[in-house]
Amino acid sequence: MEDCDFNINIAVVGMGLIGGSYAMALRDLEPKCVIGIDKDKYTLKSALDDGIIDGAYESGGDFLKEVDLIIVALYPKDTIAFIKNNLQYLKKGALITDTSGIKQDIVENINSFLPEYLEFIPGHPMAGKESRGIKGASKDIFKGANYIITPGGKNTSRGLQKIDKMARAIGCSNVTYISPKEHDRIITFTSQLPHVIAVSLMNLHEEEYKDSIELFTGGSFKDATRVAQINSKLWTELFIMNSDNLIEEIENFQNSMEILKKAIMSKDISTMRCIFEKSMLKRKELVKGQ
Amino acid sequence: MEDCDFNINIAVVGMGLIGGSYAMALRDLEPKCVIGIDKDKYTLKSALDDGIIDGAYESGGDFLKEVDLIIVALYPKDTIAFIKNNLQYLKKGALITDTSGIKQDIVENINSFLPEYLEFIPGHPMAGKESRGIKGASKDIFKGANYIITPGGKNTSRGLQKIDKMARAIGCSNVTYISPKEHDRIITFTSQLPHVIAVSLMNLHEEEYKDSIELFTGGSFKDATRVAQINSKLWTELFIMNSDNLIEEIENFQNSMEILKKAIMSKDISTMRCIFEKSMLKRKELVKGQ
Repeated sequence: MEDCDFNINIAVVGMGLIGGSYAMALRDLEPKCVIGIDKDKYTLKSALDDGIIDGAYESGGDFLKEVDLIIVALYPKDTIAFIKNNLQYLKKGALITDTSGIKQDIVENINSFLPEYLEFIPGHPMAGKESRGIKGASKDIFKGANYIITPGGKNTSRGLQKIDKMARAIGCSNVTYISPKEHDRIITFTSQLPHVIAVSLMNLHEEEYKDSIELFTGGSFKDATRVAQINSKLWTELFIMNSDNLIEEIENFQNSMEILKKAIMSKDISTMRCIFEKSMLKRKELVKGQ
Repeated sequence: MEDCDFNINIAVVGMGLIGGSYAMALRDLEPKCVIGIDKDKYTLKSALDDGIIDGAYESGGDFLKEVDLIIVALYPKDTIAFIKNNLQYLKKGALITDTSGIKQDIVENINSFLPEYLEFIPGHPMAGKESRGIKGASKDIFKGANYIITPGGKNTSRGLQKIDKMARAIGCSNVTYISPKEHDRIITFTSQLPHVIAVSLMNLHEEEYKDSIELFTGGSFKDATRVAQINSKLWTELFIMNSDNLIEEIENFQNSMEILKKAIMSKDISTMRCIFEKSMLKRKELVKGQ
């Protein structure tokens, strides 16, 4: 039996949008068994009824002794807590991965208490949508998505390869390896800052603009605010865990905007055109070949 | 013959993305004749070859004496200049409309020199795409789009109805009437500010992030920068013509972002969650029923 084989027992912790989607996508890999863990019993019942999982538990416990691969799809703090609180149940050689959008804090924290006989492979599937909960789950969210693995210094090739293969097997297109620190720095620019912008733009005006947006937009406002429909508990955690990077990047953005603002104020046509030419070329490059 | 009839001679000035799309869309209304005016003879040849227009001229002239409806699809300053420079050719009772994204400056300027026997109906079709020139033109850009008419005080119901009917006939879903001043104020929020943001975000980092964006995004960065592929000449004009509104709105946005930044800096969880809940509900409301 090859290492790429997923004929193993898998547990998915947190059966929300991401966890539910994992359970659905893993089904196609024909695992021995997929167990769902969620504190909400209605979520578990729905997952069982739909045949997404084979067994359901409201929390960890003895049954984890049979599990080979644990995918923790909880919020960052809950992810750390779940692993910490269930160490006594985990089987020697079990692989644990997560789905958190911020890595350095989590990797350092988990590695500080994880015994040698367990391995934590930090993962960040860049998949999601605006809806929440298992009702929005779909194995299609992984199709063509980016998957980032951030080895934390305690990883083995066995562990990394398993998660790499899983990511590709559920449909992700790109699996990228990068350090937790570098991951967080880049994600600040490519994901957290766009969320800060979307939220700040969405909250700019009160009711008086409510109907106007619909009638006076060619689409730019809607594009810029798509991710303003944000999960407040999750993103508060993600931002606070990455606050140093994020504050620095917000300030970089503020400076970039200030340059354009000053050019507009002084009606400096040549600077404005230079700024626009630059952004036009950079954006064109970004979508080249798509 | 009803007033809704487009069995008239129409001239489209500027056969770029917007002008070319007008010519194509107007074809379905079976006008007597559509004349294209563009300084680029290759553009004119292409439009003639494709049967989009019946006649072609590189500038205005005597032929305008036969034209009932003139659609000026040039940049704002060129729009004003074209009308001013061709007054002597224009037929008594002819209707003139434009496509500019900013209205107050243009409406005041044109009304200041337009003789009583001509009528200018200011129009803003909120249609477009990232490509430029007649090659990107398509009558489909108007399908379901917003069309704004900003009466300037000198308009007749005959003139307004004609442009209203034309906008609906070429496929626009919503035709909205609003004063030029109010139009510019709202557009600042719903369109100009999102462009300022997209450009400032796109220009934030240099080459070192080029490959990262592709591998480390779930889509939020691409959505937020779609309109960063901007037409530099056009948008420089639009921003300068509306600079007072735009500077004020950029500052409103800077303040909105500063509130979130301060909450992140002080790890003020309750304020952060409050900000996110608000944006989540507002964004949800925006796309309700779509």
